[in-house]
Amino acid sequence: MSRTYAILGTGALGGFYGARLQRAGQQVHFLLHTDYEHVRQYGIVCESKDGDFTLPHVHAYRDTRDMPRCDVVCVCLKTTQNRLLPRLLPPLVKEDGLVLVMQNGLGNEDEVAAIVGPRRVAGCLCFLCSNKIGPGHIRHLDYGYLRLGEYSGGVTDRLRAVAADFKQAGIEAECVEDLAAARWRKLVWNIPYNGLSVVLRATTDQLMRDPHTRALVESLMREVVEASAACGHPIPEEFIQKMLRDTEQMKPYKTSMMLDFEFRRPMEVEAIFGNPLRAARLHGVNVPLLESLYRQLKFLDATNTRCE
Amino acid sequence: MSRTYAILGTGALGGFYGARLQRAGQQVHFLLHTDYEHVRQYGIVCESKDGDFTLPHVHAYRDTRDMPRCDVVCVCLKTTQNRLLPRLLPPLVKEDGLVLVMQNGLGNEDEVAAIVGPRRVAGCLCFLCSNKIGPGHIRHLDYGYLRLGEYSGGVTDRLRAVAADFKQAGIEAECVEDLAAARWRKLVWNIPYNGLSVVLRATTDQLMRDPHTRALVESLMREVVEASAACGHPIPEEFIQKMLRDTEQMKPYKTSMMLDFEFRRPMEVEAIFGNPLRAARLHGVNVPLLESLYRQLKFLDATNTRCE
Repeated sequence: MSRTYAILGTGALGGFYGARLQRAGQQVHFLLHTDYEHVRQYGIVCESKDGDFTLPHVHAYRDTRDMPRCDVVCVCLKTTQNRLLPRLLPPLVKEDGLVLVMQNGLGNEDEVAAIVGPRRVAGCLCFLCSNKIGPGHIRHLDYGYLRLGEYSGGVTDRLRAVAADFKQAGIEAECVEDLAAARWRKLVWNIPYNGLSVVLRATTDQLMRDPHTRALVESLMREVVEASAACGHPIPEEFIQKMLRDTEQMKPYKTSMMLDFEFRRPMEVEAIFGNPLRAARLHGVNVPLLESLYRQLKFLDATNTRCE
Repeated sequence: MSRTYAILGTGALGGFYGARLQRAGQQVHFLLHTDYEHVRQYGIVCESKDGDFTLPHVHAYRDTRDMPRCDVVCVCLKTTQNRLLPRLLPPLVKEDGLVLVMQNGLGNEDEVAAIVGPRRVAGCLCFLCSNKIGPGHIRHLDYGYLRLGEYSGGVTDRLRAVAADFKQAGIEAECVEDLAAARWRKLVWNIPYNGLSVVLRATTDQLMRDPHTRALVESLMREVVEASAACGHPIPEEFIQKMLRDTEQMKPYKTSMMLDFEFRRPMEVEAIFGNPLRAARLHGVNVPLLESLYRQLKFLDATNTRCE
């Protein structure tokens, strides 16, 4: 039994995964905004390290009211646009359908659950390095694997089925028992590197080379691990050391938040920093470095996007 | 009995106070570096809110070995040049003379005491807003008052005499019993505003207008006050509120450290951040925000001046 997919936000991430699903034979419906005319006419072009391909025809929409109800609605918008979800989601997801939140940070599934009910929500961590380099034109640079988890926990048949669709599309996809735990683990990397890369205008290799910023990265990781444990998701110390080693061995990398900042786009400060900070406070954990970084980013985000 | 003065570092600060002393009739000897030829030929020009004046002839030197031993040696170098002091000071200060450390931050008097002995050291806090706008050309914008304190504590006749010389030159000058306490109070302002202005490229009014940075400023002030108290110099809570109010009422202001950063000059990170941080640690005080800011500034200082 095949599933229909909706892609909310056809950018570097949604465009990539949606195109891969369609190429593998799934029926995919793409919601677009500025690129709508172009994509309707020319389709989607995907340059990828796994092989380039073009989809000359895609189901393109600029209004969810024109879209069919789908089995799986992939939320690929930036979290800074989540205020649109109460309007976008209800007409789009089938009664027994699933909203798959493919966004960064913490708390996005809670927002979606409040709109469509907790039974219809799952989350998905995307480890992907890709850019949108033109209308409907995606450049996939590296990685791409997914970790899917039910909002209410446990691994279900429907989640396995969605993961199977991605796998059939050549995407490594794994189901996890504890979505929140997986999200916290990703934050161990995202919080120090995304945050400090913006504040200090630095690439990952620069942050690792300087002993002061390396120490700061590690202290921030420790705060995130402490907050995660207090929220019921212990992470072993070894994980911190692995993240540090892996990052040292990466090629010089500009984080996505640094790119947002450079292009004066809104940054995902609340999803990646604000929500974990509030979760830590709620559980009585003192995270001064995270709080300080959050406040610095809030200031930079406000002054940066105000200038547009 | 009149005193002879040496000015080590004839810039925005040393040039201003030295010129005022000479205009008031003191014998002043100026050590210069790049401006030596110009100042020897044309003297010093001082534009000041208290009245412009020119000193066509000054005693200008480019080597301390040519200078006479003086009663009072004013250290007006930036603290980033303190490595020069072991060579500069010994031939310059009289046996019963005084080295007056007119620098920012903490710990500079300790360095000087190790060179000339603790009996010949006093410190001086300068509340001055001035720039050097050309060779031997000072623009005095605002303030100018001094707080003098003996390195070994207490108010002595010699310190009163030096303060009297400044007062005769039209400079408000006050002797304080506890130099370290005065230095810590100044840090309550300098640490948050100098540090955050650089990291966030922001003026004081921007930092005060945004609720996040305002909260961060206040939290940093609280850490400095806690460290100061642990070091034996309690500062009342009311002082923090006064600093916040005063800064809110100031005209938009670029801190001196922000100017150093913009002009890619070395920043006084160790004197203003590193030494207070180490003092706090020594007394068992946890100052995570100060430490984080210190590390961010160390990174920025290293990458900023490396590009010169």
